Amino acid sequence: MTDQSLLPFFDPKGVVIIGASTAPDKLGYGTARNLIHSGYKGNIQLIGQKPGQIFDHPIRDAIEHATGPLDLAVLIVPAESMVEVILACGRRGIKAAILISSGFRESGNAGELLEKKCLEAARNYSMRLIGPNCIGIINTHLPIDTTFLQPPMPAAGNISFISQSGAFCAAIIDLMRDQGFGFSHILSLGNQVDITETDILPAVSEDIKTRVIVLYLESIADGRKFVRVARQVTRSKPLIALKVGRFEAGRKAAASHTGALVGADNVFEAAFEKSGVLRAGSAEQMFDWARALADCPLPKGKRVAVLTNAGGPGVIAADALELNGLVLADLEAATCKTLSDLLPEAASVRNPVDMLASASPTIYSACLRTLLEDGQVDQVLLILPPPPMYPAETVAESIIPIIKSSKKPVAVSLMGSLLTEKALSGFETAHIPTFPFPERAASALGALVRRSWYLQDQKDYQDQKPSSPVRIYSPEMTPSELLSGYEIPVVPLALAGSVDEAVSAAERVGYPVVLKIASPDILHKSDASGVLLNINDAHSVKVGFAALVNHVSRVQPDARILGVHVQKQIPLGQEVILGMKRDPQFGPVMMFGSGGVEVAAMKDVAFCLAPLSETEAQNMLDRTWAGRRLKGYRNLPPGDEKAVIRALVNISRLVLDNDYVRELEINPLVVNDRGVLALDVRLIYERMDDLKKSS
Amino acid sequence: MTDQSLLPFFDPKGVVIIGASTAPDKLGYGTARNLIHSGYKGNIQLIGQKPGQIFDHPIRDAIEHATGPLDLAVLIVPAESMVEVILACGRRGIKAAILISSGFRESGNAGELLEKKCLEAARNYSMRLIGPNCIGIINTHLPIDTTFLQPPMPAAGNISFISQSGAFCAAIIDLMRDQGFGFSHILSLGNQVDITETDILPAVSEDIKTRVIVLYLESIADGRKFVRVARQVTRSKPLIALKVGRFEAGRKAAASHTGALVGADNVFEAAFEKSGVLRAGSAEQMFDWARALADCPLPKGKRVAVLTNAGGPGVIAADALELNGLVLADLEAATCKTLSDLLPEAASVRNPVDMLASASPTIYSACLRTLLEDGQVDQVLLILPPPPMYPAETVAESIIPIIKSSKKPVAVSLMGSLLTEKALSGFETAHIPTFPFPERAASALGALVRRSWYLQDQKDYQDQKPSSPVRIYSPEMTPSELLSGYEIPVVPLALAGSVDEAVSAAERVGYPVVLKIASPDILHKSDASGVLLNINDAHSVKVGFAALVNHVSRVQPDARILGVHVQKQIPLGQEVILGMKRDPQFGPVMMFGSGGVEVAAMKDVAFCLAPLSETEAQNMLDRTWAGRRLKGYRNLPPGDEKAVIRALVNISRLVLDNDYVRELEINPLVVNDRGVLALDVRLIYERMDDLKKSS
Repeated sequence: MTDQSLLPFFDPKGVVIIGASTAPDKLGYGTARNLIHSGYKGNIQLIGQKPGQIFDHPIRDAIEHATGPLDLAVLIVPAESMVEVILACGRRGIKAAILISSGFRESGNAGELLEKKCLEAARNYSMRLIGPNCIGIINTHLPIDTTFLQPPMPAAGNISFISQSGAFCAAIIDLMRDQGFGFSHILSLGNQVDITETDILPAVSEDIKTRVIVLYLESIADGRKFVRVARQVTRSKPLIALKVGRFEAGRKAAASHTGALVGADNVFEAAFEKSGVLRAGSAEQMFDWARALADCPLPKGKRVAVLTNAGGPGVIAADALELNGLVLADLEAATCKTLSDLLPEAASVRNPVDMLASASPTIYSACLRTLLEDGQVDQVLLILPPPPMYPAETVAESIIPIIKSSKKPVAVSLMGSLLTEKALSGFETAHIPTFPFPERAASALGALVRRSWYLQDQKDYQDQKPSSPVRIYSPEMTPSELLSGYEIPVVPLALAGSVDEAVSAAERVGYPVVLKIASPDILHKSDASGVLLNINDAHSVKVGFAALVNHVSRVQPDARILGVHVQKQIPLGQEVILGMKRDPQFGPVMMFGSGGVEVAAMKDVAFCLAPLSETEAQNMLDRTWAGRRLKGYRNLPPGDEKAVIRALVNISRLVLDNDYVRELEINPLVVNDRGVLALDVRLIYERMDDLKKSS
Repeated sequence: MTDQSLLPFFDPKGVVIIGASTAPDKLGYGTARNLIHSGYKGNIQLIGQKPGQIFDHPIRDAIEHATGPLDLAVLIVPAESMVEVILACGRRGIKAAILISSGFRESGNAGELLEKKCLEAARNYSMRLIGPNCIGIINTHLPIDTTFLQPPMPAAGNISFISQSGAFCAAIIDLMRDQGFGFSHILSLGNQVDITETDILPAVSEDIKTRVIVLYLESIADGRKFVRVARQVTRSKPLIALKVGRFEAGRKAAASHTGALVGADNVFEAAFEKSGVLRAGSAEQMFDWARALADCPLPKGKRVAVLTNAGGPGVIAADALELNGLVLADLEAATCKTLSDLLPEAASVRNPVDMLASASPTIYSACLRTLLEDGQVDQVLLILPPPPMYPAETVAESIIPIIKSSKKPVAVSLMGSLLTEKALSGFETAHIPTFPFPERAASALGALVRRSWYLQDQKDYQDQKPSSPVRIYSPEMTPSELLSGYEIPVVPLALAGSVDEAVSAAERVGYPVVLKIASPDILHKSDASGVLLNINDAHSVKVGFAALVNHVSRVQPDARILGVHVQKQIPLGQEVILGMKRDPQFGPVMMFGSGGVEVAAMKDVAFCLAPLSETEAQNMLDRTWAGRRLKGYRNLPPGDEKAVIRALVNISRLVLDNDYVRELEINPLVVNDRGVLALDVRLIYERMDDLKKSS
């Protein structure tokens, strides 16, 4: 365990409950009852205002009278008394406390202040705190239960559950009874005045009984640290998160398209992706995935064979596979031949394999074995509605040994209740997860595949160290100069107030050039005929300058004319957007997608936390039409994909090197077959007083 | 009942089972057992090869020896004997038969032939057939059960279920036990040699015990008829479909973007929308929606109040509402005041209303009543995890009378199992649907809102009669001439082989014109500098003609040059696509969306079956960015939305009037503030021999 100070929560020598009560409707009774009945083998001490006994354990009047070794306290006392109680615990040598009571931050400013005082009190004694406003912790293997929840304690298993909501935690414990799996650790973190989900994750991941960790999150206290820690954890164990509050964050006014598009939820999505966390869409899905990840081997690829005794559910499965990014395996000829020999003529030996309603236990097991031996098959989705001719449990018995000995995962959709009861208990005993509908089985297989790919990617992944911050900012530096330091060419735009200035600017940038009228009063230069293309020599610049100024003075006499902008004319290309917004939680978020004025409406954009590896930049391209189009499409020519990837990687370095850049947007970045060119660049800097603070 | 010939399936005077058996492992035993135990009150006769008795009913050796009135036969005989048995039934005066046996179309060509012979045999006696290859029918209210499924029969209720898959039907019956609802009719249709889902729908919808119909579909036999019938049904009762095989249809080569984009699944989607069918994403969702539609009043709008005793599930609910197209209601000040008086200070009186964990049954009911009285609230999502201080059933008891007497729907998310068992049975007795997760409750509320909107739309909906087909096609007619008959202006393009021809063409179309090189060897005219804009007079046409031909001859000497195309230069505008593809099942499918070459990749398109009402055309615009952009966006000017709607409605008439048009595509249709102009039109005609067949 990395952090020794957390040890008393995971393996306490002795536990004292302060606030124990003999009144059955009090939390102080429920907590004592659960701790005593949990089977916890260490010293148990009860402290309460009224003397008495709970299941032969005496209630003492003060912690000073508690006996034996004690390192963990469970505190159920009024919020106002909490500081005092923590100090008393500290004096007794207690190193960890779980604050069950509410009345803290969740109830207003006074409570928040109280919470801070609790933390200060604890720090005096190097004491760690879970809570306040939580339901406590359960460890089914030690065992220990410090919650006040109605018995029975959840079944022991290999899934650990960390929750920021106590009520959700309680509901899940009751909802997930008899669903065929058990928990290892359950940790309700409450207001997280001290210990956060990020602090506790490494310790839980080191628990040998834990195979999968599921997280219920409403917020993340320190985004950068979460990403760093979660990346470590996910290399050894799968981590699944249900992050709620997707739509909560108000849409704030933003200074760029990137600013407007990088919503709070996109950032969480990017953070989960960066750290290998699987994000579930619902609580049900979270535990479906967890069960599969806890008890199934990982597949090598996404090819699935569907085995069914009925057509309908097979089609449902095929649909669901596609929705989850999986594909129907293309069975080998030898497999089809074997299946043909086993099955009646009317059966389908192509995937989905439909054995027909008459399929016996022997047929089920023979076909399953055949499919698992097929080199084209990475995993099997087996469908078992109540067979009309055989009890479902006889089929279960025949296939369980095959599933247990297979190195490929098999997801079983057991479609029944009364008629499949015995089959269900057989699968549960064998630790084979089942799903009532093929859709849920397919979703679980999808999670296995994503986990498998993630681990494969990690094998040769090198953590990227950002180059050390260099403050190259100076008030004189233009965006072009900053970008050119990171190999992003910006097409220069020179303002010429006179004909002579225009000619020398044109000669500086090189012909052909474009002349654009420079006026703060003309927004749409093309509409006002304020643009001249294809200017090839000094004479044409002179003629053009005069023509533009004359023309605009005539059609829009009130426009203030500053002169013309001279810009090198560049070849046409695809216009993409490349942006960055610094998120207060997770740091710089990179964006890539379709450029132009419609970017915010079309939403053809992808996000990733900086720094970017080339693979991550490539993934951003693959996730957008703008990126896929770079390979060419119909009569649209291909663009220099590698140059775009380089630009993305370099910009991600730029923003790490220069932390005064708050938002950056290149729109458009023009891509042709010879590279990229930034046509329009927006940089938004941190305010100088912020800068001073951070330097 | 519209179709009298179906009556014996719904209220038979007497039922004969042919193929009855005393052997408990035979389908002929299970069917007899279920029929006898179902409580069916009419005449029951059993016919089998071996004599004997099943529950006191004698098995006779031939239908000729059956006694009493008989109008329905249930046939469980080998496929080869089926024709003969049907004929015997016909002679006995039987008018309806359910063919349970398999061995027909599903097992190959010989079986398909056999099936057709069964139908012919039945037609001789005006006998209607359900099946073959089905599990039969159940009517819990009559009652009758002709299936061979394991007992018990499903609970009686108000949901009717029509299924094209027998296995799925059987699995659902078992899976949905003890889920708090019951069935009215269950109909397994098998191979549908005679009666299809469309035939049976009106009869089921007229059943007074049926409040909701759910359909499991793998295909639809006659798409146009289905849409017509389903539209009728959905005006009185909700119809929910689970259509599987979304991804089955192979991507066929198509002659237009529209052809490529109108996939089989989009057409089903459009058909369901046209007919008011709610399409569910999974079996679980289908029955969640059905339960809500069967037992909840319909809401007036989409504003939802969330009432919870815990923050976490409230946030989950808020997320799920948004995902389902609903919104959090903005509570009235008076409501917040009342809630403030009721609740502790730390509670949240803004929506979601969080009463905190201490909420008592009295608080639950008082808050619920307050929210239901709020004029800003159309419906309530109530969350009930096991309350830490009170048994869940006491909360259930206090809120059930309020929910039952409310005219606004209340969806209850009862988040527990063991601790909420008694509460669950209370809700079930009161016919109040509950959902284990807030996400599922939100999805059910979403279905209620969509149903409510559909009924409101139908109130003033006039069925559109297409104008009577007029075959105005002639080989000489150009697409422009055809379209102009439907008020779609097409920008004419004249080929000029000489300078003089070009001048007269330009004078015909009117200046300014565009000249484009006409060469089969030059695809990208702009790239090859083969386009001249802004030609304003005859002299410029002459100069331009020569310049274009010279230029192209120089840069691409091998190009065959036919002359130039002269087209009137039109003002710039937004480019959209407007298309139609004739679906073999459902007839013409209209498409609208973002135009240009990238249309197939961007997929910013919407579909609707023809004919279109203006409202339907408007909905297509609202569903695409191309359509929403017509209102103007940032510096992009608005386009003439009404002209686009007119064009869509008119094209939908064109394709109904001219059934030789197989595909039609205008890409782009240019929209500016003064109307629409078709720049490029593709028409694909039916082959002439097909035409002859259909005329």
